[in-house]
Amino acid sequence: MALDSLGELGRRSRAAARILAATTTAAKNDALCFAADALDSGRAEILVANAEDVARAEQSGATPTVVDRLRLDEGRLAEMARGLRTVAALADPVGQVVEGWVRPNGLVVRRVRVPLGVVGIVYENRPNVTSDAAGLCVKSGNAVLLRGSAGAIGSNIAITAALRLGVAKAGLPADSVLLVEDTRHETVREFVRLRGVIDCLVPRGGPALVALVVEQATVPYVVDGDGNCHVYIDADADFDIAERIVVNAKMQRPSVCNAMETLLVHRAIAAAVLPRLAAALEGVELVGDEATRAILPGVGVATETDFAAEFLGLRLAIAVVDDLDGALDHIARYSTGHSEAIVTRDYSAARRFLREVDAAAVLVNASTRFVDGGELGLGAEIGISTQKLHARGPMGLSELTSVKFVIEGDGQIRV
Amino acid sequence: MALDSLGELGRRSRAAARILAATTTAAKNDALCFAADALDSGRAEILVANAEDVARAEQSGATPTVVDRLRLDEGRLAEMARGLRTVAALADPVGQVVEGWVRPNGLVVRRVRVPLGVVGIVYENRPNVTSDAAGLCVKSGNAVLLRGSAGAIGSNIAITAALRLGVAKAGLPADSVLLVEDTRHETVREFVRLRGVIDCLVPRGGPALVALVVEQATVPYVVDGDGNCHVYIDADADFDIAERIVVNAKMQRPSVCNAMETLLVHRAIAAAVLPRLAAALEGVELVGDEATRAILPGVGVATETDFAAEFLGLRLAIAVVDDLDGALDHIARYSTGHSEAIVTRDYSAARRFLREVDAAAVLVNASTRFVDGGELGLGAEIGISTQKLHARGPMGLSELTSVKFVIEGDGQIRV
Repeated sequence: MALDSLGELGRRSRAAARILAATTTAAKNDALCFAADALDSGRAEILVANAEDVARAEQSGATPTVVDRLRLDEGRLAEMARGLRTVAALADPVGQVVEGWVRPNGLVVRRVRVPLGVVGIVYENRPNVTSDAAGLCVKSGNAVLLRGSAGAIGSNIAITAALRLGVAKAGLPADSVLLVEDTRHETVREFVRLRGVIDCLVPRGGPALVALVVEQATVPYVVDGDGNCHVYIDADADFDIAERIVVNAKMQRPSVCNAMETLLVHRAIAAAVLPRLAAALEGVELVGDEATRAILPGVGVATETDFAAEFLGLRLAIAVVDDLDGALDHIARYSTGHSEAIVTRDYSAARRFLREVDAAAVLVNASTRFVDGGELGLGAEIGISTQKLHARGPMGLSELTSVKFVIEGDGQIRV
Repeated sequence: MALDSLGELGRRSRAAARILAATTTAAKNDALCFAADALDSGRAEILVANAEDVARAEQSGATPTVVDRLRLDEGRLAEMARGLRTVAALADPVGQVVEGWVRPNGLVVRRVRVPLGVVGIVYENRPNVTSDAAGLCVKSGNAVLLRGSAGAIGSNIAITAALRLGVAKAGLPADSVLLVEDTRHETVREFVRLRGVIDCLVPRGGPALVALVVEQATVPYVVDGDGNCHVYIDADADFDIAERIVVNAKMQRPSVCNAMETLLVHRAIAAAVLPRLAAALEGVELVGDEATRAILPGVGVATETDFAAEFLGLRLAIAVVDDLDGALDHIARYSTGHSEAIVTRDYSAARRFLREVDAAAVLVNASTRFVDGGELGLGAEIGISTQKLHARGPMGLSELTSVKFVIEGDGQIRV
């Protein structure tokens, strides 16, 4: 059977989006709960399809990490279903009146949240993204057009089939959730150029995918970029808190974007605190600047590349800075604008850091690991934006909406 | 003297942006008022430079419209200065807490408005854009990098010099306002690819400029697109209101994006209302579908192209639709998502129209001409977005900001 062309899928997706935009919250919640039920009852088929994807990946010599991300089991499937039910329980952003006022001539003006329309997702071989993204998009009234990887295509087809069943059972268009089954590499380029079809593209992948989107996309997009996150230990820091946060930010889950990659320490306390922090970071490979290495002789040399790197692993760059200004300068130079933290008891240092650091999230006396939609209370997230337009930081349901001006009059004309 | 390279201008712009972001509202207001004073006192130099631009335009055979847009006089200059003082009087969006809450673990989370950083503007030969854009950007804490046209370069250099004088007098970096003086065509392409320098690009120009941005830009942008705006006269419309709004929407200023381009009329009242509307629209060239021409025999044939067109002049396409659904379908097919209006006394028709039409602005019983930052009460506008991401509809000061997460704790770590 020939695969549907992207143009045809786009047309169907837009038609579904128009219906979804005028759907009640109750119907959308039903759709999500029925989709969760369908994941539960379709468990056997999904696991069979996934086992084939996993076998292919193993045969082609994929790394254990890649295989692990790809592999589903009963527990992970149950978690995907639970995720859909959680999103069903969240507040619907659509229809929310963001602000409103009355003009001198009597016009009543409101700005009201509306769905974006069609949300496109390009992602790698994590089949759970298929249901997570579909749940968030449908709840916010958007049709979702999914473009997963070739390596997970069997799993994605099986998961999408279940989701579509649930959505249709609630009386919504099955095409609210559509998967691009043609996973040839060329279709990514075509996908990111579906202008007029995709209202918002969320690329979920590494730097190569982001670069392709920035260069080639003609559709609006939100970039979920790198996180070169810093923790700065101020002269007036509480050392216990500093140790706790540094260990948590680096070691609790080193492979994610909100983990710390560079530690900055105020010169006045460097000799006192660095040995203690280094001991607590046992198992982490440390590299440092000259001042750090004078205090911690065993530590390797940190290069420019280290200070610019998102290691995503158990490696940490350390620099000693003269003062808060030194820390701010270092961060302004190397930060990717994701999450930046200061540990201090000094009120004015905290205030300046919060104000002057240019990042999606700035923290005082808390681990960078909190910069996550769930942890911050958004309920769920579709990604973490490192750009400044539209959304910045963790993106929840509200960030999957736009706002329209609703203007009511009784015959006003402009003079 | 060699012109500064774009890279060098970008570096200076970013340095200014970092300082501006942490500047008080009072200093920014001073900067705008001093800049207005400098426009007043630099009047003679600016008018001399402008006269040279105008002479060059006339010699090269520019149309009267183009020359008119380019030409400054004492009145227009005074209006530019007044515009800066008006923006100084508006509320500063920077620092506004959009929302905030406390997490169960005690973390205090706020989302706070912050400047975007560097705003890039590409524009055509209207020298007033130079000061209007600079005023809005500086007030919202952004450095502005201006790339005007070759035809207005003398005027732009003179205006920018005055603005920089005023900004510097307030103690802000003169580089808060920077003009690209190299107006060769190639620099536009280079400009829209200043990724890492420009945080938000606002292209102000026609379809060719928008197409170049969509194809070539690597920086984030907000498109100020076409307005193919519709007014739909429902079966239950008040004919007096209908006539007033139709005339205003089409004729009050036909050359702008929020003017009506297509009139839709419910079949049940078409024969009763169309002759009256046609008479009121005297001077407008009417083209219509078959049903319209059966009622108004003198009217020309409206083609597909007419229904899709933004005439920006005294021409109007008319279609008779079977009912509200017919109107919604027509609009869904041809609308550019700018401004769409219904005239009706029927509550449920108004409700459906407001909900189901997908546009930046939807209006009941009011002229499309109100969709404008000043008219809606935003104080001023940098453009009207026809895209859904970031900003939609008239963009004021708030739309020149981003939001950052500010997270305060007392040692919280993620478990």
